[in-house]
Amino acid sequence: MKDTALQDHYSEVGSHCYGCGRRNEHGLHIKSYWDGDETVCHFKPRPYHTAFKGYVYGGLLASLIDCHGTATAAMAAYRTRGQKWGTEPEHRFVTASLRVDYRKPTPIDTVLELRGFAKEVLDRKTIVSVKLFAQNQLCVIGEVIAVPAPPSFATPKC
Amino acid sequence: MKDTALQDHYSEVGSHCYGCGRRNEHGLHIKSYWDGDETVCHFKPRPYHTAFKGYVYGGLLASLIDCHGTATAAMAAYRTRGQKWGTEPEHRFVTASLRVDYRKPTPIDTVLELRGFAKEVLDRKTIVSVKLFAQNQLCVIGEVIAVPAPPSFATPKC
Repeated sequence: MKDTALQDHYSEVGSHCYGCGRRNEHGLHIKSYWDGDETVCHFKPRPYHTAFKGYVYGGLLASLIDCHGTATAAMAAYRTRGQKWGTEPEHRFVTASLRVDYRKPTPIDTVLELRGFAKEVLDRKTIVSVKLFAQNQLCVIGEVIAVPAPPSFATPKC
Repeated sequence: MKDTALQDHYSEVGSHCYGCGRRNEHGLHIKSYWDGDETVCHFKPRPYHTAFKGYVYGGLLASLIDCHGTATAAMAAYRTRGQKWGTEPEHRFVTASLRVDYRKPTPIDTVLELRGFAKEVLDRKTIVSVKLFAQNQLCVIGEVIAVPAPPSFATPKC
């Protein structure tokens, strides 16, 4: 049986992200899970997420790496504290810097697999490496420098 | 009177990009223009393009930088050759590497302005710098390493 994803436990105010918020009805609903010491995310691009026909749009790939990267940083924060998701304090991260290297064109008609790893956990930032595979081929390599979400983000707006 | 955008001249096979393809009915329809020696793009995020409420999703910002970056590389290729858009050969670029530094949260309820500059034009790659402003505040800095689109991308797929 599959565990719930980290994003299923985001607080109400933090669950509207277009990438991974469960309350964003237009969003991508990216979900991140543990798989051993790595985090994993599976995502099926929609047919219109094209770059050139047959290949996935690079901005979508960057989006997947971004959200799965900040999720991985949060998951590492919970795990290093021995803390369960959904308990206080909530650990949320935002991206300070994102780097995406496109190694080969990513085919669109398949489920993509992202594997994340928190390679450096510091007090003020976590550096996450993400690899994205399609049909077992490494297509994209990403790095996310994630920092704790500022308190202003927890204040409801709009 | 505003000129047409570069993307208005993309060939049929190359106009389905989710970010900037005029024939992608679900897409963002990013448009890039010259403004002196810089390229400019204006984009109004949709209300659901949220990160946390009130702020723009980082993956969208990366997408804007990606498409405006590759467009800027193409525009530089036309300009250095004294060649008009829409004439042969078509110059199209894809992203080899994307870097996005998020300097401050980007408010969602305003038109964003991206300004691009081809800072290095080499035979096999063009390095583009993109700055993204909201309400005249610099919010995001991007760099795109763009390379000519491989011939396989010009072959219709589905």
